[in-house]
Amino acid sequence: MPDSVLVHSPATLSNLGCGFDVLGLALAAPYDTIRVTRAAAPGVRIRHFDSYRLPTESARNVAGMALLALLKEVPEPVGFDVEITKGIKPGSGVGSSAASAAGVVVGANALLGNRFTNMQLVDFAMAGEVVACGARHADNIAPAIFGGFTVVRALEPALDILALPAPPLWVAVVHPQIEVKTSDSRKVLPTEVPLGLAVRQWANVAGLVAGFLTTDYALIGRSLDDYIVEPARLALIPGLAEARKRALAAGAIGGGISGSGPSIFMLNETEAVAQAVGEALGSVFTELGIDFNVYVGPVGSTGARVVSAD
Amino acid sequence: MPDSVLVHSPATLSNLGCGFDVLGLALAAPYDTIRVTRAAAPGVRIRHFDSYRLPTESARNVAGMALLALLKEVPEPVGFDVEITKGIKPGSGVGSSAASAAGVVVGANALLGNRFTNMQLVDFAMAGEVVACGARHADNIAPAIFGGFTVVRALEPALDILALPAPPLWVAVVHPQIEVKTSDSRKVLPTEVPLGLAVRQWANVAGLVAGFLTTDYALIGRSLDDYIVEPARLALIPGLAEARKRALAAGAIGGGISGSGPSIFMLNETEAVAQAVGEALGSVFTELGIDFNVYVGPVGSTGARVVSAD
Repeated sequence: MPDSVLVHSPATLSNLGCGFDVLGLALAAPYDTIRVTRAAAPGVRIRHFDSYRLPTESARNVAGMALLALLKEVPEPVGFDVEITKGIKPGSGVGSSAASAAGVVVGANALLGNRFTNMQLVDFAMAGEVVACGARHADNIAPAIFGGFTVVRALEPALDILALPAPPLWVAVVHPQIEVKTSDSRKVLPTEVPLGLAVRQWANVAGLVAGFLTTDYALIGRSLDDYIVEPARLALIPGLAEARKRALAAGAIGGGISGSGPSIFMLNETEAVAQAVGEALGSVFTELGIDFNVYVGPVGSTGARVVSAD
Repeated sequence: MPDSVLVHSPATLSNLGCGFDVLGLALAAPYDTIRVTRAAAPGVRIRHFDSYRLPTESARNVAGMALLALLKEVPEPVGFDVEITKGIKPGSGVGSSAASAAGVVVGANALLGNRFTNMQLVDFAMAGEVVACGARHADNIAPAIFGGFTVVRALEPALDILALPAPPLWVAVVHPQIEVKTSDSRKVLPTEVPLGLAVRQWANVAGLVAGFLTTDYALIGRSLDDYIVEPARLALIPGLAEARKRALAAGAIGGGISGSGPSIFMLNETEAVAQAVGEALGSVFTELGIDFNVYVGPVGSTGARVVSAD
């Protein structure tokens, strides 16, 4: 077994339009780069090599909490030194906290002889999400661990995650530099929804899953629509309606809010279209005078993975 | 083109547990047997060869209304004489009205050179469902026309139905002889549902679609659970909880209320298990002193179809 591993842990899209709290998709990039090293000293020590000023105390750090959850299931005395270089900006809505939490548990598992299943790793990494957003949820963790297209079918009584193949897809994401806290974006959600809208929503969920599994791009496009969450969050994300309009005009299949925002994602059939869609998305925020970053890349078939071991 | 055709139009399961108003599954049997004959006289004449005393006036008969909707799209003067032998008992919750409506439009289409698409036929047949239950819905019509496993993704702005392959499955249905009107079973539904329950419901819809498309019986089984509609209708169907318990003990994958009830369906991997499950379902109603019928048969890969033409 290695003493130290280097892990790449990818950005992820959660919700995917209609699939609030359930569906997720792994990207190939951007990703966090994480070194996990076995230490004789018990416990977890986190260092960040980036400029985001994240807390490094284990109990306040998403990676720290994830590893502490894992260590509870390890009988022998062992600890981990962790060095994180965030490639994914925190608060961007593409699973930044999930990437760190997933990456460290994948790294630690490699140092422990891969004794844990992916489902167990998701369970550990969810402890990190509690630090980031106050809730134990897996919709970014699941694709960050499994890769591809994921369904969090149940958290209780047992965690049940489906890892499904994704068709070839290119993703364009625009991250406008406005702050939308996950906790704020949860506050605007309705506590109850009309049954008729819920039916339309799960009809789209059925369509989206069928579209992914049968590689039907047109079906994916028309199934992404979100009748419940996006309308509630629309006011939090300036430019969303115009961004979608321009992205569709540039050839995107469809898209929506990435996670709890403020990033906006669009799915595309080819790299060329995704590049054009990325530019179209950016043009909206240029005109609004809001700084932004654009990511364009393919869907990631793998989740967090060890790229080198010493 | 033939002058007269004989059509078999199958029973169907709608809702399929979690997929209220959206999912459907065609059975191979029972089915209605319907003769549709081209007539020089315009309009539609319906005769029933069964003992159910259904209205035969076209505007009050599901098959009549479906054919009148179809005739609006036929420019030439033509009419239809229809003879229906119901193999599916009305009010049983396995798509009796949908079978008649679907069967006649499939028959009429054959007499008109198959000029209409399946999607158009669903649209016509939905006019029949308005007579039967007061609402324009397609969750039984879709599998009755397309066969297999269907998703009614949208009724508006355009009808969008997905016809998906179903894995080999055997269905056991028990029809207790109690009356549950579709209109009554709609009245007990909540108008609003908690967002958290809606999320659990569409997680199951995602799981069920993935289970069908990947032939994962265990996934189908654990995804069938309905958190919203079944709890509201539980009181209308005595014996449901006990029936499920005995069916699962007999080897069923899972099941629930068929359509708006009172029938209860269970999905099974083999004919032998389905037979045992059918007996288990029946035993509950024997003990309750309620008469019942049990149907056991495979999922039907085709919907309504012409079996002979003259």
